[in-house]
Amino acid sequence: MTTSNPTLTVGEIGEQAIIERITRRLEMPAWVEVGPGDDAAVIKPPRGLREVLTTDTLVDGVHFDQAFVPADAIGHRALAVNLSDLAAMGAQPHAVLLSLALPRGFTVAALDHLVDGFLRQASAHRATLLGGNITQTAGPLVINVTAIGAVRPRRALTRAGARPGDEIYVTGTVGDAAAGLAMLRVSAAATTAESVCAGRYLRPEPRVRAGLQLAHHGAASSCVDLSDGLADGLRQLARASGVGVEIDTGALPMSDEARAWHTAAGTDALAAALGGGDDYELLFTVRPRHRGRLRGARRRIGDLPITRIGVVTRGSDLAVRDASGCHALPPGFEHFR
Amino acid sequence: MTTSNPTLTVGEIGEQAIIERITRRLEMPAWVEVGPGDDAAVIKPPRGLREVLTTDTLVDGVHFDQAFVPADAIGHRALAVNLSDLAAMGAQPHAVLLSLALPRGFTVAALDHLVDGFLRQASAHRATLLGGNITQTAGPLVINVTAIGAVRPRRALTRAGARPGDEIYVTGTVGDAAAGLAMLRVSAAATTAESVCAGRYLRPEPRVRAGLQLAHHGAASSCVDLSDGLADGLRQLARASGVGVEIDTGALPMSDEARAWHTAAGTDALAAALGGGDDYELLFTVRPRHRGRLRGARRRIGDLPITRIGVVTRGSDLAVRDASGCHALPPGFEHFR
Repeated sequence: MTTSNPTLTVGEIGEQAIIERITRRLEMPAWVEVGPGDDAAVIKPPRGLREVLTTDTLVDGVHFDQAFVPADAIGHRALAVNLSDLAAMGAQPHAVLLSLALPRGFTVAALDHLVDGFLRQASAHRATLLGGNITQTAGPLVINVTAIGAVRPRRALTRAGARPGDEIYVTGTVGDAAAGLAMLRVSAAATTAESVCAGRYLRPEPRVRAGLQLAHHGAASSCVDLSDGLADGLRQLARASGVGVEIDTGALPMSDEARAWHTAAGTDALAAALGGGDDYELLFTVRPRHRGRLRGARRRIGDLPITRIGVVTRGSDLAVRDASGCHALPPGFEHFR
Repeated sequence: MTTSNPTLTVGEIGEQAIIERITRRLEMPAWVEVGPGDDAAVIKPPRGLREVLTTDTLVDGVHFDQAFVPADAIGHRALAVNLSDLAAMGAQPHAVLLSLALPRGFTVAALDHLVDGFLRQASAHRATLLGGNITQTAGPLVINVTAIGAVRPRRALTRAGARPGDEIYVTGTVGDAAAGLAMLRVSAAATTAESVCAGRYLRPEPRVRAGLQLAHHGAASSCVDLSDGLADGLRQLARASGVGVEIDTGALPMSDEARAWHTAAGTDALAAALGGGDDYELLFTVRPRHRGRLRGARRRIGDLPITRIGVVTRGSDLAVRDASGCHALPPGFEHFR
């Protein structure tokens, strides 16, 4: 969808027109009994399954910056970060709600692109936009998404199941999104469209399929998604499970582009791999006797790399091991701090 | 819950401490399999029922003003406006999610009061806070709530079922909240705690019980909640049902306090009753042959007044009738305009 007037703002067309502009693009599956446009949506809940609920907010200037994040990537990310939470529970996405607090001067063209990115991501993961909310704000753009998924009884992956001796794995690569963000900050114009790292930051792919297969095969004893960095993910998982971890820094999967960028910039690639946020990979643990289940899951996950990076330990120490020995895990990113 | 330091801010205690401060107050019912603290919550969906989903955002300076709305009332209203949407569908509230975008200088004391108001309202309507999201913002306070309810199959009340000849009813009184807001704007200090109208604005009571009974008895052919005023509600209901309406202005239920306030202020009480928002009453229609069902519902609703205010007509005219004749309905409030 496009608008012929690139300077037309949401303040000029008003709330009803914005809502109609979005809802006329939607198609409702049969399990939706009342779709967008009423006081609330009505659905048949998934039969015999458990429901998984999550919500996440993105604020301009905190979670992204309109200066170098295109509107469609904002829409993509707003949904992807929520689907990543469902993936970490092993759930299939189902229904989503979208709330936008828009500055009056936000253009209709940007809104259309934001919705483009959101709906493409929804379609890629079979999630249906059922409703939401549009309001104005005197402050920055705020996007809130609620995502609902389904998982079979007793198959949900939580953070709390890791035991000493379990092996620690991560999907994909870590630290790419942080390198991509750094590149975009230096110069969005000079960052090529071919940059893997910039793409990872702008349009992260939630690991929905991996989460589903890990849950389906009963392969993972615990799981968390990496929104605030690997160190933070390890800390969350260890705290919830009441265990320690020991990570082998030599095993951490990083992309060649991120390594090259850190070498050129003179920054520590390892620190970035541990501390850098926005990867939206899955960090999970596997009992040694369940390696066969993991192999079963991997066969269905496809090309996504899955790398063993360490082991769960007794106690509560969070350690990283490199050539020089064992060190304490550096802190992850925490909002407000 | 109180904090001993009234100037301590959320920026000083950080995200984790805020989350723990809220979650340690929560108790989870048996249908919650994974509560707050993981990537997402996991619940058993209500068996044999339909699920009703809604979300709403409140922005400081748009939907309330911290200058005259106490923090507990902000929390109360954020949930109440969502429960009102569930009420308008005839649904029993079930699970809620709360997302807060907080200015760094927001005090921990205010946060505690906001959560007090939110949790009291949740408890009053048997809704369980399952999770949410805390982030900072450089802009105004933004609160997003998602509420999930349950309704029996084919019992959900929509806006679309009104037919010519149906009678139009409204619960409670209309225009009170708008009068209360006007009083608070003139002087929050001078507005007494006994003011019915100020209370209606600050702590609206969603008509959950009325909605449930109307749905349970199959009494209403359509229903909408009055968030943006009676005129707007009538317009939404008429548009969705493809009908017109004729309202008897003499029948509009207003509180004595609101009438007296408008008389003293020299403003038009009727215009306020039609155009004033934030009432969160239910507007609904009843087929004449279903008056017996309405009587059945009323017996279970309790003291809440229910007033017949007009009739559904053929065509699409929205008319109000007074001593001088028939007039076109004035427009309601629309965000952004």
